[in-house]
Amino acid sequence: MLLLILDLLGIAVFAVSGALLAVRQRFDIVGVLVLAAMTGLGGGWIRDVLIGVTPPTSLADWRYLIVPVACGLLAFWFHPALERMDRPVIVFDAFGLGLFGVAGALTASEHGAGPVPAAILGMVTCIGGGIIRDLLAGRVPVVLTTGELYAIPALAGSAVAAVGFELGAPTVAVAVPAAALTIGWRLLAIWRGWRAPSPRRT
Amino acid sequence: MLLLILDLLGIAVFAVSGALLAVRQRFDIVGVLVLAAMTGLGGGWIRDVLIGVTPPTSLADWRYLIVPVACGLLAFWFHPALERMDRPVIVFDAFGLGLFGVAGALTASEHGAGPVPAAILGMVTCIGGGIIRDLLAGRVPVVLTTGELYAIPALAGSAVAAVGFELGAPTVAVAVPAAALTIGWRLLAIWRGWRAPSPRRT
Amino acid sequence: MLLLILDLLGIAVFAVSGALLAVRQRFDIVGVLVLAAMTGLGGGWIRDVLIGVTPPTSLADWRYLIVPVACGLLAFWFHPALERMDRPVIVFDAFGLGLFGVAGALTASEHGAGPVPAAILGMVTCIGGGIIRDLLAGRVPVVLTTGELYAIPALAGSAVAAVGFELGAPTVAVAVPAAALTIGWRLLAIWRGWRAPSPRRT
Repeated sequence: MLLLILDLLGIAVFAVSGALLAVRQRFDIVGVLVLAAMTGLGGGWIRDVLIGVTPPTSLADWRYLIVPVACGLLAFWFHPALERMDRPVIVFDAFGLGLFGVAGALTASEHGAGPVPAAILGMVTCIGGGIIRDLLAGRVPVVLTTGELYAIPALAGSAVAAVGFELGAPTVAVAVPAAALTIGWRLLAIWRGWRAPSPRRT
Repeated sequence: MLLLILDLLGIAVFAVSGALLAVRQRFDIVGVLVLAAMTGLGGGWIRDVLIGVTPPTSLADWRYLIVPVACGLLAFWFHPALERMDRPVIVFDAFGLGLFGVAGALTASEHGAGPVPAAILGMVTCIGGGIIRDLLAGRVPVVLTTGELYAIPALAGSAVAAVGFELGAPTVAVAVPAAALTIGWRLLAIWRGWRAPSPRRT
Repeated sequence: MLLLILDLLGIAVFAVSGALLAVRQRFDIVGVLVLAAMTGLGGGWIRDVLIGVTPPTSLADWRYLIVPVACGLLAFWFHPALERMDRPVIVFDAFGLGLFGVAGALTASEHGAGPVPAAILGMVTCIGGGIIRDLLAGRVPVVLTTGELYAIPALAGSAVAAVGFELGAPTVAVAVPAAALTIGWRLLAIWRGWRAPSPRRT
């Protein structure tokens, strides 16, 4: 139950980021709702399709669907207020990242993926929705270009979760430190200005 | 048999729209055929992958494949004539929308999707191909931005079909009013200039 | 064993092309590795998802995953040297094209696809990764626009492989001429400047 609430909270934060981008790009109501849904749920859908869980859990369960719709409508009407909340959104987003990565890696592991694919699928759960959001909005996916430490902490937490599962550790003993690694690294990176490296320019 | 013909007609209209966009963007023959195929069949492929029907019906059956190839070649050679047919194309497109939504929702329902996911998958069948077309052509998907009443009538018809299936109504009794709702709403919206709302500008 | 090595070589060539594009577009390390992986493996993932092989073979097997990671890191550090190797890369790429098409068509056939879908899925294996690469890099997929003879030789080889499989010929007797057709046609097209047709301009 706690896990479901945390999962829905992560979806909500991602959905708001998608909906606000749609508003900024002057999308209509359909665009706002589609971007909210794909940003919140798209990463999980890609993961589920890749491991053969069809229909994806969050497509079959209306509780998952109602969250991005509500967030999309909220952003549609109250986007000026939401835009001003960027500080708390960054922190919530870090928590969403930690939860999505761990949940994604454990879901993949439970469906028979080895630790390496499971770690990758955890990261895919984290960044897939944002990549779809950016493609639909006509911009190059920010997760690939800005040097933000985003995908790397997500992969690290996912890897810890996948290895812990492989070693047979109890779920809570795996999930908490794995999510904490992602969240802590992400927040420290924002606070201290740590960056991922980029290729030397020539 | 009638259903197959209607389905192929819908694919043909969508394929022509993809092929003509490819011609306008100066794609080569490969681009024209790929855009024709993905616009006509892409929405159904996404739906089938999401509900676990693999390979997608319209990939396994050559009768579905030959339609976009023929439409692509037609557009390749006769695009000036086809471009002038935009009025009938808009009407055919509305019929394609109604048929795709209902067929998509019923297919999803038959494979065990509940009414809410089935309605969404009906809409995905309608708009998925056009979204892939626009992404491949390097433009923001028009269905998300223009305020046209397109996805919303599609979702409405899909929802009626999905709920009718859930209630155990016979297929024809469900499909005809559901498709009529989509087609009628779409044509009225074009005729009367109805628009979907967009967020207030700030 | 030989087949695995050839397959990994094809993935490597594709991965290098993705990583170099990412470097040119000023992506960070995450972008370089993601583009390397998706260009090398994305076509096979699309094929596997469409025929229901989940998780995709090259996601489940770490030997496939390590190749694009190594290529991505190589491009990250040594991109000036790799950029100068464009002549051998074009030849290797033609070999990758031949191998991917045949391997893709035979994989699809073995999972029950008929000859027409199998030929198409062979071509999808060849061009899918490059299309994802270009979309993620924010450009229109080059395979659709330039008039290069690329997808057509790939489809031809894939079709020969699919038909050969259908007729019950032994794998080697099918794979060698099929790959040779693709590779030969592709190299001849580069050498002689053959082009695919484009629509007349109006």
